[in-house]
Amino acid sequence: MKKTFWGLLMVYGASLLIPSEIFAQRDEDDAEQVSAIFSNTLTQSSCYEWLRFLCKNIGGRVGGSPQYNAAVAYTTQMLDSIGADTVWTQAVRVPYWQRGNIANVRIVQSQKIGTQQLSAIALGFSGATPRLGITAEVVEVKSLAELEKLGSAGVKGKIVFFNRPMDATKANTSHAYAAAVDQRSLGAKLAAELGAVASLVRSMTLKRDDVPHSGVTRFENQKPIPALALGYQSADLLADLLKDEPNLKLNVQTDCSVAPDQTAYNVIADLRGSQYPNEIIVVGGHLDAWDVGEGAHDDSAGCVQAMEVLHLFKRLGIRPKRTIRVVLYANEENGIFGGTAYAEYAKKHPTEKHIAAIESDAGGHTPRGFSMDVLPNAQKAAFQKAQKWREWLTPYGLYDLQTGSSAADIQKLRDLGTVLFALRPDSQRYFDYHHSANDIFENVHKRELELGAAGMAALTFLIDKYGF
Amino acid sequence: MKKTFWGLLMVYGASLLIPSEIFAQRDEDDAEQVSAIFSNTLTQSSCYEWLRFLCKNIGGRVGGSPQYNAAVAYTTQMLDSIGADTVWTQAVRVPYWQRGNIANVRIVQSQKIGTQQLSAIALGFSGATPRLGITAEVVEVKSLAELEKLGSAGVKGKIVFFNRPMDATKANTSHAYAAAVDQRSLGAKLAAELGAVASLVRSMTLKRDDVPHSGVTRFENQKPIPALALGYQSADLLADLLKDEPNLKLNVQTDCSVAPDQTAYNVIADLRGSQYPNEIIVVGGHLDAWDVGEGAHDDSAGCVQAMEVLHLFKRLGIRPKRTIRVVLYANEENGIFGGTAYAEYAKKHPTEKHIAAIESDAGGHTPRGFSMDVLPNAQKAAFQKAQKWREWLTPYGLYDLQTGSSAADIQKLRDLGTVLFALRPDSQRYFDYHHSANDIFENVHKRELELGAAGMAALTFLIDKYGF
Repeated sequence: MKKTFWGLLMVYGASLLIPSEIFAQRDEDDAEQVSAIFSNTLTQSSCYEWLRFLCKNIGGRVGGSPQYNAAVAYTTQMLDSIGADTVWTQAVRVPYWQRGNIANVRIVQSQKIGTQQLSAIALGFSGATPRLGITAEVVEVKSLAELEKLGSAGVKGKIVFFNRPMDATKANTSHAYAAAVDQRSLGAKLAAELGAVASLVRSMTLKRDDVPHSGVTRFENQKPIPALALGYQSADLLADLLKDEPNLKLNVQTDCSVAPDQTAYNVIADLRGSQYPNEIIVVGGHLDAWDVGEGAHDDSAGCVQAMEVLHLFKRLGIRPKRTIRVVLYANEENGIFGGTAYAEYAKKHPTEKHIAAIESDAGGHTPRGFSMDVLPNAQKAAFQKAQKWREWLTPYGLYDLQTGSSAADIQKLRDLGTVLFALRPDSQRYFDYHHSANDIFENVHKRELELGAAGMAALTFLIDKYGF
Repeated sequence: MKKTFWGLLMVYGASLLIPSEIFAQRDEDDAEQVSAIFSNTLTQSSCYEWLRFLCKNIGGRVGGSPQYNAAVAYTTQMLDSIGADTVWTQAVRVPYWQRGNIANVRIVQSQKIGTQQLSAIALGFSGATPRLGITAEVVEVKSLAELEKLGSAGVKGKIVFFNRPMDATKANTSHAYAAAVDQRSLGAKLAAELGAVASLVRSMTLKRDDVPHSGVTRFENQKPIPALALGYQSADLLADLLKDEPNLKLNVQTDCSVAPDQTAYNVIADLRGSQYPNEIIVVGGHLDAWDVGEGAHDDSAGCVQAMEVLHLFKRLGIRPKRTIRVVLYANEENGIFGGTAYAEYAKKHPTEKHIAAIESDAGGHTPRGFSMDVLPNAQKAAFQKAQKWREWLTPYGLYDLQTGSSAADIQKLRDLGTVLFALRPDSQRYFDYHHSANDIFENVHKRELELGAAGMAALTFLIDKYGF
């Protein structure tokens, strides 16, 4: 529509200049622009090739690692090359936990099956064992509450095994994850407080293979105990054996360690707004990734989608009214240090008004929509405004726009009144790969990734046009 | 809710019998029942194991082949074992095209690259070549209209190469397929009419690999010419070479043949309705599959999902008011003979009123909703009724309920006033596999398949409860 209209104007003479704002509220323009965003992304984008580089040439990258710094260098260079007005890096001090080379969990002697190695991986911030490992009996629990009830009398000197599976009846696997992950993130700390010598947890996955899934566990000021995740089948096997052999012993060996704190970096790139340059729309993902696998879905996908938003505005020649800022956050996995540092920066620079922040950190699968979060007093107005945009997004499968949680790295911007959006992709496969050796480039589908990038770009376009 | 309510009734005495219809319109029941359908399917279903058997123990099965008959025997047995009230097979006469062993397309002599084999596969009903093949020049066209313009003067004695790609800008790949597939289904016939000696077509896929995709082509009363599909990369290579070497020659070899017509079977299983047994709700997929790959997504997935609907009603102890009928159609791929035969049966049995038909024939990926089709005079009422059900389906990601086309096998029931529904799964990966050697069990995701089955069961439940 817009094109046709300008064509007509040309017939009457090029001197007839009409401010573009006159047309800014025309709905047909929105439909056309969103269509152009999707078409162009599905045919001209670079995000899949950026993803390939991050996965295949750099790979997994815990905050503080040389690989993380390589990812900073690469994305900085790419953002500069696609025409960002400014690209800079924000230094962030991060802890530097190192996995080491050993993560063995072995059934010492079962009457039924003898000795057997289980499939295991250390959790982030896991402690180490002596060189020959720790050998002890196992106490299986289904929840932190059950462990607390046992108390130190039931736990001291033992290995705690958290074995509540993700709930397969949840259609959205993120809900199943959220309801089970306390065992991984808080279980080892509680076990240590009660005198356990090690902590095991069933991997956070619904896939019935035996690939173990890592992830962070938190000890705060405590001395870390060894904390590992078991593969789905290994967890099943152990639980089965414990029914008949409650005194079964395991040997656990790890050589994790913590190096001195490092400096990591948030990567920040602006496409400056033409009318309200101090109104900021942040789009981002986190640049760190677990060191097993390649961090393809978690969260290289989110990073390259955010970069593609800026790229797309450049390719389509859309000069935003507000500033579009790509932020690739450091060290989400091991404590959200990058997101926290960016929110501090934002608080210290009140002349910049962060009107909205979008994050993609739930995988590169086909997008279903966005969830929204904002301070309660602004929620109704923001939600009503965003609801109007659904019309432009549903033709591309982004039906879902709900209030709810957003994403870890942008969460702290909420206090500034920023309207937060998290991209919500199809969730079925995400936890098949998440934090495991299977989170690799080959498991990301090009068009699904691109649709997510286009969805973020379309939302950015609408926020830029209508503000909040 | 229902459970609690009945619980209260029990307090006041078990003798207080209340007909279930009094509660039939209570919305909370619907929400609870749909929730039970999804939960149960995601944890207790058999469809994934049935799929494994159809793919791994039987595999591809063109209508009329021994493999097709094995699939009839297996599904009949399964439907019987899960407690269908009746299971029978409807005989259908079908043509029996055989692929043979040879599908060679070779660049005879390019100045640039010499001789090279292209990746190719014969289309259904392709003719054969002499033993040493056919060697001829190539004429590339982008559409049937372009070929018609060339006329026999430009085509006679040549190999026609249809090379219009699927349009990657379409967010829904089914739309891209629908807009390109005339080249495959009608191109060879037109080429033959104009005197071409063979016909090639770019594979119907958006994936940039070199796996060729088969599918039917139609000659009607004509003598078939050899008709093959080229892999995406092979099509690109050929097009590139033709730019500089328009007189390039290809050698094409195939040994396809047509055997005498065979008897194939629709598999039909009823769960009889308690109140309106003559009102029929059909759920189905087609049981034949291309002989390359295993027909996993196309359409073993649809068959096992339909079987799971009946299975689920049995498992949950839901006795339907209307008759739920599973129909697994013969020979969709080579001419929709099973769907046509079933519609003829339905027309001859007017005491059975086919109120609705649901088909799953777009792959086993995460369901997004249903498209609906019905005679124009009934469209508004049916659509309004179904719209009310969206509320129960959206929590499970089935947002989309639109009028539009349905699916091939049920299409002919439309004249009977039947309301048609086609399951609409996520479309991004479907044409990566469709009709190719990659349509195998491993490319179907268990939960995605189950969600589709649950979506069909939930829709069946609502149609059974509220009728049309």
